[in-house]
Amino acid sequence: MKIIKTIKEFNNYRKNLEGKIGFVPTMGYLHEGHLSLMKKAKKECDIVIVSIFVNPTQFSPNEDLEKYPRDFEGDKDRCRSVKVDAIFYPEEKEMYPEEGMTTVIVEKITKKLCGVSRPTHFQGVTTVVSKLFNIVKPNRAYFGQKDLQQSIVIKRMVKDLNIDVNIVVCPILREDDGLAMSSRNEYLNEKERTVAPIIYESLQLAKNMFDNGEKSVERLKLAILEKINSKISDDMGKIDYVEIFDTENINNVMKVNKGNAIALAVYLGKARLIDNIIL
Amino acid sequence: MKIIKTIKEFNNYRKNLEGKIGFVPTMGYLHEGHLSLMKKAKKECDIVIVSIFVNPTQFSPNEDLEKYPRDFEGDKDRCRSVKVDAIFYPEEKEMYPEEGMTTVIVEKITKKLCGVSRPTHFQGVTTVVSKLFNIVKPNRAYFGQKDLQQSIVIKRMVKDLNIDVNIVVCPILREDDGLAMSSRNEYLNEKERTVAPIIYESLQLAKNMFDNGEKSVERLKLAILEKINSKISDDMGKIDYVEIFDTENINNVMKVNKGNAIALAVYLGKARLIDNIIL
Repeated sequence: MKIIKTIKEFNNYRKNLEGKIGFVPTMGYLHEGHLSLMKKAKKECDIVIVSIFVNPTQFSPNEDLEKYPRDFEGDKDRCRSVKVDAIFYPEEKEMYPEEGMTTVIVEKITKKLCGVSRPTHFQGVTTVVSKLFNIVKPNRAYFGQKDLQQSIVIKRMVKDLNIDVNIVVCPILREDDGLAMSSRNEYLNEKERTVAPIIYESLQLAKNMFDNGEKSVERLKLAILEKINSKISDDMGKIDYVEIFDTENINNVMKVNKGNAIALAVYLGKARLIDNIIL
Repeated sequence: MKIIKTIKEFNNYRKNLEGKIGFVPTMGYLHEGHLSLMKKAKKECDIVIVSIFVNPTQFSPNEDLEKYPRDFEGDKDRCRSVKVDAIFYPEEKEMYPEEGMTTVIVEKITKKLCGVSRPTHFQGVTTVVSKLFNIVKPNRAYFGQKDLQQSIVIKRMVKDLNIDVNIVVCPILREDDGLAMSSRNEYLNEKERTVAPIIYESLQLAKNMFDNGEKSVERLKLAILEKINSKISDDMGKIDYVEIFDTENINNVMKVNKGNAIALAVYLGKARLIDNIIL
């Protein structure tokens, strides 16, 4: 497995590659969710490339850039365990050698959901993913459904800009108690970790209600809010949003339909956790 | 010479190409300036692809999109004469099948010079050039120095986004009387066409002054303004801007140095003409 730290070195590596290239962009601190993307890529492609880069431009000044967890040695082992071919592991000055003037902006769908509390997050994501796609030149790129809005935004960017990369969105992996896997679960203390599964339980409750005929957006949202608030007290955390929407344009729906998504974000201790379910 | 109208058809053509691909993006109504780009591409590359697309997103509502001159039959002959391999000639709905949400924005350097009177022009350019690069996948792309700011903006975008395309900027071609070749010269009536060469004469005057030791930005600009106003009366047109700047970041200079550029834009009749000179 190659570890490549510079773009120049990557270009030299890339030009000799043949066959289908699968790409998994990550911020590292890899868990089973990331590994599931790599395994899927391995199954569908000849070469699998993983990038590990904690991208500063997708954090706002008050967010957790500095304390975002890092474990490159462990990440290498994890990548090796699923037979990744190369890790692209650039330093910040390699990706942003000077103040960049160029931004790739997706409008509208980035203003909703997480975009409300993280207004510059998605332009950081779309810009760095554009850069990574231009460096890695993959045929397929793998994203987790855990970051549902991100995957919708990336798909939209790829379509609008005619980027020749196939976007593959893979299912959410969960801990045994249902909590969606996330590098940020690391931030939870023992008590917070104990109550965290209520987030997914609330989504399952809503899905059950929907499957049993409930089509009211308000009643489903209310059920989720009540369920979460029954376990997460004001001093432990608070709900950022709960939304029900169509998965192409993230438009709120009047009446819930099959294929709509429910997504939510919850502040819990030092963590901001997101989760979602497709109906 | 192939004429390709859809992206799907282009993809099929592109995947069988080998060797170095040169690309000349144009809005058609081709003149010798465009042909010089194609000839240069032909010399440096194995395959030369020209796009002809009058991109609506780089015109603002009050500009000349509707009356922008078009002559596809003539353009085909001109491309054939310099042995272009393929023309990509998409319709608007092929490039923008729905309302796009994604924009590639270069900040700062797009706010200056032509960006003052055309505030959304360059984001239209950078977005469509991104799309065309993603479709055509060239090794080299050729732009004219006539649109100096455009070439600086494109180079910046390519650098910031790690786009793997070599940008080649080619010299301005001029009519016998010095007027820079432009599809928009078409808009000039006989009288306007007679005075138009004063634009380049004024740049030459300033260059001569510089070569003879004049380093004052103000005195060079004044000489240009006076020269142009001596021929172009208020009822015929007016100067939009005259600026002297460094060619990397388009920063105004305090004192003029070798390598700086003088650029200007002049409204003349129905046309807005631009020209520039590197010192």
